[in-house]
Amino acid sequence: MTEPFSPQPLVYFFGQGRADGTSAMKDVLGGKGAGLAEMTNLGIAVPPGFTISATVCHTYLDTHGFPPRLRTQVERALERLEAATAKEFGGEETPLLVSVRSGAAVSMPGMMETILNLGLNDRTVEGLAARSGNPAFAWDCYRRFLQMYASVVFDLPKAPFEAMLEEARHAHGAAREIDLPVPTLKSLVARFKAHVTDQIKRPFPEDPMEQLWGAIAAVFESWNTRRAIDYRRLHEIPDDMGTAVSIVTMVYGNLGDTSGTGVAFSRNPSTGERMLFGEFLSNAQGEDVVSGARTPEPITALRDKMPGVYQEMERMARTLERHFRDVQDMEFTVEDGRLYMLQTRRAQRTGQAAFRIACDMVDEEAISEEEAVARIPPQALEQLLHPTIDPSERLDQLTVGLPASPGAASGVVVFDSDTAERAARAGEAVILVRRETSPEDFHGMVAAKAILTARGGMTSHAAVVARGMGKPCVAGAQDLDVDEAAGVIRANGREVKGGDWITLDGSTGAVCIGRAKLLAPEMTPQYTRLMGWADRIRPMKVRVNADTPADAHRGRDFGAEGIGLCRTEHMFFEGDRLFAMREMILAENLEERQRALARLLPMQRGDFESIFRAMEGFPVTIRLLDPPLHEFLPKDDGEMAALANEMHKPLEHVRHVVDSLHEANPMLGLRGCRLGIMYPEITAMQARAIFEAACTVAARKGRVMPEVMVPLVATMVEFRRQALLVRQVAEAVFQERQLTVPYLIGTMIELPRAAITADEIAREAQFFSFGTNDLTQTTWGLSRDDAGKFLPHYIESGIVAADPFQVLDQVGVGKLIKMACELGRGTRADLKLGICGEHGGEPSSIAFCETLKMNYVSCSPFRVPIARLSAAQAALAARGTVDRTKATV
Amino acid sequence: MTEPFSPQPLVYFFGQGRADGTSAMKDVLGGKGAGLAEMTNLGIAVPPGFTISATVCHTYLDTHGFPPRLRTQVERALERLEAATAKEFGGEETPLLVSVRSGAAVSMPGMMETILNLGLNDRTVEGLAARSGNPAFAWDCYRRFLQMYASVVFDLPKAPFEAMLEEARHAHGAAREIDLPVPTLKSLVARFKAHVTDQIKRPFPEDPMEQLWGAIAAVFESWNTRRAIDYRRLHEIPDDMGTAVSIVTMVYGNLGDTSGTGVAFSRNPSTGERMLFGEFLSNAQGEDVVSGARTPEPITALRDKMPGVYQEMERMARTLERHFRDVQDMEFTVEDGRLYMLQTRRAQRTGQAAFRIACDMVDEEAISEEEAVARIPPQALEQLLHPTIDPSERLDQLTVGLPASPGAASGVVVFDSDTAERAARAGEAVILVRRETSPEDFHGMVAAKAILTARGGMTSHAAVVARGMGKPCVAGAQDLDVDEAAGVIRANGREVKGGDWITLDGSTGAVCIGRAKLLAPEMTPQYTRLMGWADRIRPMKVRVNADTPADAHRGRDFGAEGIGLCRTEHMFFEGDRLFAMREMILAENLEERQRALARLLPMQRGDFESIFRAMEGFPVTIRLLDPPLHEFLPKDDGEMAALANEMHKPLEHVRHVVDSLHEANPMLGLRGCRLGIMYPEITAMQARAIFEAACTVAARKGRVMPEVMVPLVATMVEFRRQALLVRQVAEAVFQERQLTVPYLIGTMIELPRAAITADEIAREAQFFSFGTNDLTQTTWGLSRDDAGKFLPHYIESGIVAADPFQVLDQVGVGKLIKMACELGRGTRADLKLGICGEHGGEPSSIAFCETLKMNYVSCSPFRVPIARLSAAQAALAARGTVDRTKATV
Repeated sequence: MTEPFSPQPLVYFFGQGRADGTSAMKDVLGGKGAGLAEMTNLGIAVPPGFTISATVCHTYLDTHGFPPRLRTQVERALERLEAATAKEFGGEETPLLVSVRSGAAVSMPGMMETILNLGLNDRTVEGLAARSGNPAFAWDCYRRFLQMYASVVFDLPKAPFEAMLEEARHAHGAAREIDLPVPTLKSLVARFKAHVTDQIKRPFPEDPMEQLWGAIAAVFESWNTRRAIDYRRLHEIPDDMGTAVSIVTMVYGNLGDTSGTGVAFSRNPSTGERMLFGEFLSNAQGEDVVSGARTPEPITALRDKMPGVYQEMERMARTLERHFRDVQDMEFTVEDGRLYMLQTRRAQRTGQAAFRIACDMVDEEAISEEEAVARIPPQALEQLLHPTIDPSERLDQLTVGLPASPGAASGVVVFDSDTAERAARAGEAVILVRRETSPEDFHGMVAAKAILTARGGMTSHAAVVARGMGKPCVAGAQDLDVDEAAGVIRANGREVKGGDWITLDGSTGAVCIGRAKLLAPEMTPQYTRLMGWADRIRPMKVRVNADTPADAHRGRDFGAEGIGLCRTEHMFFEGDRLFAMREMILAENLEERQRALARLLPMQRGDFESIFRAMEGFPVTIRLLDPPLHEFLPKDDGEMAALANEMHKPLEHVRHVVDSLHEANPMLGLRGCRLGIMYPEITAMQARAIFEAACTVAARKGRVMPEVMVPLVATMVEFRRQALLVRQVAEAVFQERQLTVPYLIGTMIELPRAAITADEIAREAQFFSFGTNDLTQTTWGLSRDDAGKFLPHYIESGIVAADPFQVLDQVGVGKLIKMACELGRGTRADLKLGICGEHGGEPSSIAFCETLKMNYVSCSPFRVPIARLSAAQAALAARGTVDRTKATV
Repeated sequence: MTEPFSPQPLVYFFGQGRADGTSAMKDVLGGKGAGLAEMTNLGIAVPPGFTISATVCHTYLDTHGFPPRLRTQVERALERLEAATAKEFGGEETPLLVSVRSGAAVSMPGMMETILNLGLNDRTVEGLAARSGNPAFAWDCYRRFLQMYASVVFDLPKAPFEAMLEEARHAHGAAREIDLPVPTLKSLVARFKAHVTDQIKRPFPEDPMEQLWGAIAAVFESWNTRRAIDYRRLHEIPDDMGTAVSIVTMVYGNLGDTSGTGVAFSRNPSTGERMLFGEFLSNAQGEDVVSGARTPEPITALRDKMPGVYQEMERMARTLERHFRDVQDMEFTVEDGRLYMLQTRRAQRTGQAAFRIACDMVDEEAISEEEAVARIPPQALEQLLHPTIDPSERLDQLTVGLPASPGAASGVVVFDSDTAERAARAGEAVILVRRETSPEDFHGMVAAKAILTARGGMTSHAAVVARGMGKPCVAGAQDLDVDEAAGVIRANGREVKGGDWITLDGSTGAVCIGRAKLLAPEMTPQYTRLMGWADRIRPMKVRVNADTPADAHRGRDFGAEGIGLCRTEHMFFEGDRLFAMREMILAENLEERQRALARLLPMQRGDFESIFRAMEGFPVTIRLLDPPLHEFLPKDDGEMAALANEMHKPLEHVRHVVDSLHEANPMLGLRGCRLGIMYPEITAMQARAIFEAACTVAARKGRVMPEVMVPLVATMVEFRRQALLVRQVAEAVFQERQLTVPYLIGTMIELPRAAITADEIAREAQFFSFGTNDLTQTTWGLSRDDAGKFLPHYIESGIVAADPFQVLDQVGVGKLIKMACELGRGTRADLKLGICGEHGGEPSSIAFCETLKMNYVSCSPFRVPIARLSAAQAALAARGTVDRTKATV
């Protein structure tokens, strides 16, 4: 790229109540520069300065030089700055000192460079000493400047400087550099300069202008460091954005007791309470707060010490909040009793605070209800709905697995379900740790606070059951070696014994050693109020994925408007049912199979009845048996022998069945509707259980709306045959009961072929529910259970932007979904469309569903509120009225 | 459906040199009726008759009655028939007797009904006896009529009639019924009638008109028998086609020595030689030929007995062949020295004959070269290219597996590779029978005549290796229990011991007990000539899937124009290489891995060199390592221990690696380009081997055109990263060798996501090769290795029309392919497109590729000729000039 001819200025001045820029010019000025300009325009006291446009960044990087226009414009800005401050850049009497900071349009914390006190040299330092009357302060500033400049501009290691400082502090027994005697500080400055000269083979630049250009160049170059590039990749920040450079007059909080520095929030970011909140450190600079050497006081201390300053701060906070229409997080410095704002930005806040602030601001008529809904980050709900680890805890992370079920828990490591049950009964908090769980572990999972597995993915047994129970679960922690025999787990060269405490964060997948303080979830009145607004806004319904009556109730409590996915197989994984299921699988002929099915029928019917009751008045989508049958059978010899014994079958037979059901790729094998086609009697039993239960509830005046879902359909004919069977059973039951219940039959679209031939399938199916888990697996050719070996690397190295199992891949999978919606509706205009994969609870995926005008999304119970909120936000974004990302600074 | 008002006649007369219908009216007249009409129009002597339109069939089936118009038209046709024959239907002196036959537009052999001698009753039989002067003949005709009518119209079982006949023959020591004394025949007729009356509770219809309408109704009803419906489903014949009914004057070949019956071909259907060919049975009826009671003479016998008739037959054969422009298969009867043609149709022929006939007819200027190419059925090539089981053999089928590699072989059952090798060395023909094969079985497969496995699909190790070797293989015979310990195989309750003979047909999947006579393959000069024409016609290139220099040579011999798929992993499955590969996989760090790769490099380079030389002047597509690494590792403990020992690694380590590479769904796991991304050093080694080999060949003036193919790409970025690496290696090698070789880098499109995002991928990739095996697996969510449990049922019960792994699923998978072609070419107009799955050798799939204007198809060596022919036929069909299905009767 060559320098573009541009009439746009390259430098933007701010000061004396007027700025060339505004907050709308983030692309040019960076977030920081735009904030400074805007505050200046608002009449807030900001130290004057100027910002070099981010557009210069690439010119510099491409040409390794500055555009000629820039020199002139910087010089002119410096002149204005001298005029505004009545100081002189490089002047010996009243030296003008500046900070040089980078700042891109998007915040890149920790990635950006800062140099303070630029303009100091052997002459100006004397002027600063004289003017401030505090030579130690002046020489300490000089010392700091040299250190920062050496690091940022000359890229010298920090350690030698630290060592010299340490030596000096040690020699004088001083805790802080500023407490050192002036001669020592002077000699440190001399030693620093000598060290730099030695390293860069030329003297340290004494000329402030040379210092300034060196600093500007260094900021631009910092854009292309490995670290910055990686950060941008990780956060999907475009490389061509570039960074601006802000040059701001230095103000000092360390000029005595009428000076100080701090951070203030316009409201309490933890609770949302409307009051100035923050910290203040008297006679100090920003670095002192960060370094932790001194403990700051609450901001209220300022009220007592400098009531005028405090009032001014309150005024500024109100002004900024009103202007930016959101809570502000402000950095400030008090120099000699005078308050300066150095930065303002949208305040981060807890989930609780987010809701309270949003509701309060609606009551204050600062924002509309829509805006209130639009600006709650869906993640804020996680904090309201699950225990979280206290952010103040220092965690000792052992490893990371998949965030399989959200929430945090601490407990002692237990390796088997019986022990877990015993310990839990004895009042102990336990975490069940298994290589992988199986149906036999159910009671252990009930007993445990949380579950950790080394194998299996987001849809493994552990993950699905835990999500259903609402318990935290970290699954598929690949690094984890679960050595049950030795009674230890190992990862990354470390070991944790059974009985030792660990803490899991099921929202991030973190596995930590030790016990952590947890914050309890809390649903506030503001939550209820704001979610009510959200519900009024969204056209899409939100349903819950619920396999049990308990799940169904939980879903209703969270506001679900029906069940989008009831996986009937999970009903078979417990006690009696598992036994009857195994009888069915081990049956040697149709008659035996039907006998076992007859035993399963009343159990299923009972479950469906309870579920229909729990969801009265709402639709309930019931999926016919889906998983490969071998999932119900034991895997090891001992369990097979026990089963054979219990079932009065020869072990050989059990082994033969287990063996014959073995599949090379179970994900792509005999499952879904293929089971129902091979064994129509299973489908018939399930249909009978559904319609008998529906009739029973309907007979007592309950409103039931069953939607029967045929899984894993690849061809229209498969669907048609299963649907025919279901309809025949429905008719038979209605005849027997002398009662008719309205129902739908539809299918899960979870294979690419189903999506591609959706026009054909819609001829027969009354609804489509997108099973995005399987659809992602087949579209990508990626087994969720096996992706752990390489998908993390794919994400880290930027091959994929996000885990497609968590965030819907709109370009690939989404295109198939779109195609299926269009083809399906083309055939059947009133085709009901929904999504029931994990993505049904993920905000960006929900937004995608909204663009396709789906009828509903369905997700696990604890994600229902997130889905309600996201669906409302998606609708607002689609209307174009409010966009959360634009609503705030 | 109700009877449509239609001006079209319902009955079509033929006789006296003129017919109402023509051969173009198959839909109305059925194949048989159309043939009779056309022959009549050609002046061929055909017994006169008439055909009832197939459109009546559904009217009858829907209303259970005949349209009123029909009665009138049938009566009128009968009057014309009486006039033409000078006989009277139901007349006592010169009774007109007719046959009633069904006949649909498509031939349904064995499915259709026939009644002969209709019109006989207690009175007309006397007239027939008097007129023929042969009472035994007349009464035997009557007896036959009663039997057929009872079976077809009254649906009575055949056994009681057979028993009465058998009793009579036995009593008189007569071999044939006609040899029985007339009184016995008369009493048989009486007993037959009594039996029918007894069964149907009313007398046998004496009125010929009543007989006729009963017969017509029965023919229509036969359309909806279970058997006929199943047959139609199996052969994809539409249900609404319906059958016509042909009513034809009876002629008799059993009126003495100047009568007879037979079948004649206008050319020899085995060799194609231009001469009348067939069989003749003097003084006989068609049934006598079929029953096998008497042995017919060659048709040349007719020349001696009735030279006039023979000359007339030659004339008719020439006329029909010239008219229908293809070899005819004719049924005829000579009645009292007069020749009648009863049917003519396109003659079935052997592969050899098909080529010879086609070439001869071009030389005779009867058809064009294009037509010659269009009318060779691709299956004909199978016979030319592989040993086949002599069609005269009676086979004792044990079970059926997947037709994994074509051709037939007989040999003794051997259970392990060492024994196979020993026995083969001793000159024995062996068939290697394994549950599944592994790389360790390679030498056994080399030694065996054919391979049989109980597990694994069409892409299993056994199948792929066997196809590469051109050996017959039946894989995945699900019913087969391979009990190596007991030294037997079992299936369907039967047992075959090791050392016993079996015969495999790899083209059908049949496994038969015993040794069968095989026919050797033979490539004739006509084959070469016709394939030359095909090559000139087709725009698509045909390449071979070849992994070894031997395969490459074989492919060239079969006419391949390059390699479309060179699977590099197959190079690693032998001896030394397998060891080095395992070293690479078991490497504990990058250095160890690179050391092992360095050992693999010269081996790969050597293979590539030989392959490039074998394919000089043609492109060679080399696929980078694709399969999951665990495929290279041993599975059982013994082998692991041996490997650990050999490799000087602890067994624990081997076990750990094997364990850690275990995948729940290997098809969807760490394989394809995912390997190359996780281990770039593997890609780098392979690229180096490719380009070093290419440079070596190019340096000696050889023309090499490597095309590097990145497998299993789901996202453009995966491809871009691998392509970048390959390009870097290529540049490095070119620099080192001071030589540049032109090459392409492209990808296999084998995941739905790649197809959907083909526009993005084409930005980087220079060619697409459709891996339709994997693309079918992922699009359908169907593992080829596991589909054996239900796919056969899907096919049998009509859920799918054909196995999508054998015949490309154009509706589903094909739509993705089409989308990918369009998106890809939209981005890059000169994108090279090809297909390299199993479908690349399947005719209908090749035709689909032609519609997409692909650049080439690629298939296994032995399918190359089939692909060459099919590609030419597809091009002809696309041009609309010639269509094989329409070119012939």
